[in-house]
Amino acid sequence: MVGYAFMGAAHSQAWRNAGAFFDLPVQPRMNVLSGRNTAAAGEVAQRFGWGDVVSDWKELLTRDDVQLVDVCTPGDTHAEISIAALESGRHVLCEKPLANSVAEAEAMVAAAEQAAAKGIRSMVGFTYRRVPAIALARQLVQQGRIGTIRHVRAQYLQDWLADPATPLSWRLQRERAGSGALGDIGAHIVDLVQYVTGRRIASVTAATQTFVHERPLPVEEGKLGGRGGEQTGQVTVDDTAAFLARLDGGVLGVFEATRFATGRKNAIRLEVNGSDGSIAFDFESMNELSYYDALDGSQTAGFRRILVTEPEHPYVGGWWPAGHLLGYEHAFTHQVVDLVGDLAAGRDPAPSFADGLQVQRVLAAVEGSAESGTWQHV
Amino acid sequence: MVGYAFMGAAHSQAWRNAGAFFDLPVQPRMNVLSGRNTAAAGEVAQRFGWGDVVSDWKELLTRDDVQLVDVCTPGDTHAEISIAALESGRHVLCEKPLANSVAEAEAMVAAAEQAAAKGIRSMVGFTYRRVPAIALARQLVQQGRIGTIRHVRAQYLQDWLADPATPLSWRLQRERAGSGALGDIGAHIVDLVQYVTGRRIASVTAATQTFVHERPLPVEEGKLGGRGGEQTGQVTVDDTAAFLARLDGGVLGVFEATRFATGRKNAIRLEVNGSDGSIAFDFESMNELSYYDALDGSQTAGFRRILVTEPEHPYVGGWWPAGHLLGYEHAFTHQVVDLVGDLAAGRDPAPSFADGLQVQRVLAAVEGSAESGTWQHV
Amino acid sequence: MVGYAFMGAAHSQAWRNAGAFFDLPVQPRMNVLSGRNTAAAGEVAQRFGWGDVVSDWKELLTRDDVQLVDVCTPGDTHAEISIAALESGRHVLCEKPLANSVAEAEAMVAAAEQAAAKGIRSMVGFTYRRVPAIALARQLVQQGRIGTIRHVRAQYLQDWLADPATPLSWRLQRERAGSGALGDIGAHIVDLVQYVTGRRIASVTAATQTFVHERPLPVEEGKLGGRGGEQTGQVTVDDTAAFLARLDGGVLGVFEATRFATGRKNAIRLEVNGSDGSIAFDFESMNELSYYDALDGSQTAGFRRILVTEPEHPYVGGWWPAGHLLGYEHAFTHQVVDLVGDLAAGRDPAPSFADGLQVQRVLAAVEGSAESGTWQHV
Amino acid sequence: MVGYAFMGAAHSQAWRNAGAFFDLPVQPRMNVLSGRNTAAAGEVAQRFGWGDVVSDWKELLTRDDVQLVDVCTPGDTHAEISIAALESGRHVLCEKPLANSVAEAEAMVAAAEQAAAKGIRSMVGFTYRRVPAIALARQLVQQGRIGTIRHVRAQYLQDWLADPATPLSWRLQRERAGSGALGDIGAHIVDLVQYVTGRRIASVTAATQTFVHERPLPVEEGKLGGRGGEQTGQVTVDDTAAFLARLDGGVLGVFEATRFATGRKNAIRLEVNGSDGSIAFDFESMNELSYYDALDGSQTAGFRRILVTEPEHPYVGGWWPAGHLLGYEHAFTHQVVDLVGDLAAGRDPAPSFADGLQVQRVLAAVEGSAESGTWQHV
Repeated sequence: MVGYAFMGAAHSQAWRNAGAFFDLPVQPRMNVLSGRNTAAAGEVAQRFGWGDVVSDWKELLTRDDVQLVDVCTPGDTHAEISIAALESGRHVLCEKPLANSVAEAEAMVAAAEQAAAKGIRSMVGFTYRRVPAIALARQLVQQGRIGTIRHVRAQYLQDWLADPATPLSWRLQRERAGSGALGDIGAHIVDLVQYVTGRRIASVTAATQTFVHERPLPVEEGKLGGRGGEQTGQVTVDDTAAFLARLDGGVLGVFEATRFATGRKNAIRLEVNGSDGSIAFDFESMNELSYYDALDGSQTAGFRRILVTEPEHPYVGGWWPAGHLLGYEHAFTHQVVDLVGDLAAGRDPAPSFADGLQVQRVLAAVEGSAESGTWQHV
Repeated sequence: MVGYAFMGAAHSQAWRNAGAFFDLPVQPRMNVLSGRNTAAAGEVAQRFGWGDVVSDWKELLTRDDVQLVDVCTPGDTHAEISIAALESGRHVLCEKPLANSVAEAEAMVAAAEQAAAKGIRSMVGFTYRRVPAIALARQLVQQGRIGTIRHVRAQYLQDWLADPATPLSWRLQRERAGSGALGDIGAHIVDLVQYVTGRRIASVTAATQTFVHERPLPVEEGKLGGRGGEQTGQVTVDDTAAFLARLDGGVLGVFEATRFATGRKNAIRLEVNGSDGSIAFDFESMNELSYYDALDGSQTAGFRRILVTEPEHPYVGGWWPAGHLLGYEHAFTHQVVDLVGDLAAGRDPAPSFADGLQVQRVLAAVEGSAESGTWQHV
Repeated sequence: MVGYAFMGAAHSQAWRNAGAFFDLPVQPRMNVLSGRNTAAAGEVAQRFGWGDVVSDWKELLTRDDVQLVDVCTPGDTHAEISIAALESGRHVLCEKPLANSVAEAEAMVAAAEQAAAKGIRSMVGFTYRRVPAIALARQLVQQGRIGTIRHVRAQYLQDWLADPATPLSWRLQRERAGSGALGDIGAHIVDLVQYVTGRRIASVTAATQTFVHERPLPVEEGKLGGRGGEQTGQVTVDDTAAFLARLDGGVLGVFEATRFATGRKNAIRLEVNGSDGSIAFDFESMNELSYYDALDGSQTAGFRRILVTEPEHPYVGGWWPAGHLLGYEHAFTHQVVDLVGDLAAGRDPAPSFADGLQVQRVLAAVEGSAESGTWQHV
Repeated sequence: MVGYAFMGAAHSQAWRNAGAFFDLPVQPRMNVLSGRNTAAAGEVAQRFGWGDVVSDWKELLTRDDVQLVDVCTPGDTHAEISIAALESGRHVLCEKPLANSVAEAEAMVAAAEQAAAKGIRSMVGFTYRRVPAIALARQLVQQGRIGTIRHVRAQYLQDWLADPATPLSWRLQRERAGSGALGDIGAHIVDLVQYVTGRRIASVTAATQTFVHERPLPVEEGKLGGRGGEQTGQVTVDDTAAFLARLDGGVLGVFEATRFATGRKNAIRLEVNGSDGSIAFDFESMNELSYYDALDGSQTAGFRRILVTEPEHPYVGGWWPAGHLLGYEHAFTHQVVDLVGDLAAGRDPAPSFADGLQVQRVLAAVEGSAESGTWQHV
């Protein structure tokens, strides 16, 4: 695995847990962790049980005990590492967004396709797909439970930048992160909407905005925020991105991503309205799915608060009895379960790099529209 | 109508509105309002359109233009006024609780039965039965939608006495109010539970408590609280009453009434669990009913938030389109609609004085148990 | 008053109730109701206590007992009636939207300004401003409780058109209604956002869509839907309108209005995020306001569910004790209370016709953007 | 560790995770797991990384590499194993309820006290104390944020027995489980209420009930339910227990535990009302605490939905950024973190066996009252 920070911990926990709670066809071994700061990486390795630590990710590609590379670094290095890993004959799990530009993402897809011909597989880490309530939402849509889809509205609301004193981390620098709220969290709702509805975004009109242009440079890294010093630097990414979208099949979408929604901590909200029903989700209540079945009739129809903790619900059977909630990290475990299952079965995992590229194209269209003031096709 | 304060206004509004929004078989005329303070009563009369004002309720019983007496006074006068009105050949609508003692209530039932033989009808004002969501709850139970009932839990939580500076109104004096939280608000949940489930409370074990024993005497009346002066007096009623109950048919009930639940303003909460489903209600969201249908299956079962504003829901058809909420006072209008309908059709209205007596007997059993420390039969 | 349907009933109830629950400086008299169908209008008049009924609204303008004309007709007649009424020296309360076109609205503003010079006043009926929770939201913003505003998101979600069998009422015909969801319900959220935040919409990019193009012609009028027959007609308005907006002062707004959000009955949702806090509202829980105060500190900060039923809350003092909820129609009563107070005090009521015109210009910009695919200035 | 089923997995995960996410003074090693079914225990050992497996728990007490014994077996073996372990000089963590009878619990406390004199420590596993929202609730009470406590109401509602086909597991047999809902889940709310309020239950009046007296014998074990066969057996424990309680300091409590509340999966609900505020919790939304601060004033007071995921909240700092929820199992990790910290620091961990005995005495008083029909002192 490459990277050992917030995402590195989440992925480490997933690799450890998958086999403890689920029956895996093969058992992953956590052999080696790569991190430029080997002291810090070493501590993470010890905590989570990685067998070895190296400072240069390139070493991973020459080791016999590395069959899969899990890329948890900032977006600007995704393409280089992933392509090299695929070319070296290793499977790749790459964190989202796939890359910082469409061009990079296209190169990654090309590499993935070449590798696939040799049985080497790749996957992009849109982890929220594996939240049980989200997976259930997709099931209901696929079963036709809400009929013909007409509306989607999706928001990803955080507030950790609302305070101007929050420092200028790599997530606020265009050259590292590619974009701001758009790529960091907007990418998630683009993927989720397309995953749940099965419809792709065809065109968009967008607005982006930066509210706070200058911030203290960080003197200490935190999970998201960290602590700032006296020197300041320029924010070079968007603080928020909003867009209207036309999706395949006549669906109208409204999207908004921001890290300035005071009081909303990680509110990934999704609502889909169909001719026969609706579904709604909010990650701040991630164990629940709201579902309205218009066929219930007017006497008793109402949004159902489904507690998605039944053994019959997606991924839940591996865990605890009904009503015993799951948390954020469990979706990473489900991702590993699916990935390992696909590798063992010789299936292409989803979402593929091509799916990641398509999301990247949506993000590029959003940026293009925000600049030009016109609708952009994806 | 006798009485012109909080309940008097609510009843006046109901008499005015019933014919505006519903098709009534006969049109009530608001002929005369009785109040000892004729100035205050006169103002209420003018605001709501009462034709005349008298200071002595006995006058109502000799007037040709009074066919029904609506008793909105404190509980210590219910028996005298209601019995006299019935004996004079006038229909009676009497606010709850029916009386301050079982003996008084029994006398009222006797009077009601004698009157009924002459076609004179009587009704006790457990108005919350006419909240559409409550009426819907009863419908669902009667239709068997939740199967065999096993549990009921009911709470009536207010907080207007949590502040020791709230003055000593008549509601805190045993000789006027009969009891405290028990009779004032506990009576409502006793009636609601029995109404919704169709089961009667058979025996109880109870605890009552007074948290604040001395309060300022009021120098100004308010709707509930008012304003206190420097003199103080003794609180002679319970501040809270809690009891466990065994109901007919093996149902176990848990009840609690208090005016010290800080932050709960008028939280009448009711939950009924049956073998096939459950219903839950909270008056602070009075336009909603929660309903769980176990037959939905584990994939999609969840408590439905039914917005009880559809034309098909009880009482709603007279009002606004779906989603346009009703308020507290509307239940009083529904009470008038039902009462006028029953009178015109020659039907006995419900809840009857006998129903009110049964509630009174439950309250007496609760008080008896709280004193004796043993289970009491109703 | 002109008009006797859904809005006519709501306004009638308001005129009746204002003086019963609030101390008015002058007491309105409900002298005459105008409606082309005099039988239907006569029934409404009798139910609500209008003194007289006429078939032609022009009669109102020659009667000595009419000092104010309340216009509750579809939007295509607002301009003609309002202008004539103002010119005849009568105050005017006109339902929203002010008109079906900017040109009409401009003419109305001109008439209102001429009338104002003679002490004749005018007001447009954006009634939802008078929901206590909305008025409280504005208070909090004005008090600086949420700091500098950054985001607003507003949705007006209904579902009564989701069923293709819902008939083609006047609300679906461009020549009567001007537009569809945009003018009918989108106008409300435009006004509410501007009212609560004190910021005006400067430019927009928009999408509109019609999902169902052909519907049965109505054979029976309902409050919103009615019943359709066998003949069909073309829907000539939008079924939904969504737009992004830039508001004064660097605020980014996201708006959506639809009558196809299955399960959402009258969900007027508003969220405003500021540097120090946020507010959120949903009309389906209209007695509540959500408020997040970032100054509470991370230990105890959280969205507060304020039950807006305290005597200290806007408009609530006239009604019931805390926790006794208000409904949809109460906002109309508050509108009358404010209007009568302004007239008696010689103040210009708000929202003025000029405010209504500004909303109309926003709607026109939305329609312009939806056609051109580019941002439009208001 | 002794036991490998539902609780065994939860404890195993905790021992693994504590050091990964928290800085521990000493690092626990998972050396040996004991289970009579060594095949099943072996699989659990392999999944979670236990070094060895033995079939007889007594072996643990002779091994040098066992310094602490974690007892996760049914309640009938707690006393024997815990006392032997303590006498052998090993620290003990024992699952709740401490024992199946007061006598056993007393013997365990005696053993614990003797062991403590030699520096051997013991703890009972009331894990829900370590849910961050519960720990925050206690903090707020201790800080005086809700003033003088007047009311507590606590419910533990599940529904996995509502279906009469659910088989007769050991949890339904008196000789194994001691009692039914009372000891299994009622014990939790007794502990939680006393923990959060700092007040002890002094006396109770109670009702217990068994709704389904005969059930199929299990042919397959599940986490809670399992699968039943054709043979049946008698349920010898309560299905539900409800009781009123008087707590120290004039607090009135209402408690209810049931496994028949259809639709409630794991609803541990707690509400505490004080003179200055209230707190409320529901485990089905376990990352949230509701808090009402009466000092906010009537304009803006409201129950705050605190998302208990801030780094400043109890236990949260070890995990993810704000808004990234925790699940059921995390509380077990916190338990290990606290226990290891106490052992390293030479502190007595809480809750102690004496705390467990006190809970046992409350349960005994409840059973005594349910039998006698009178109030019982604890």
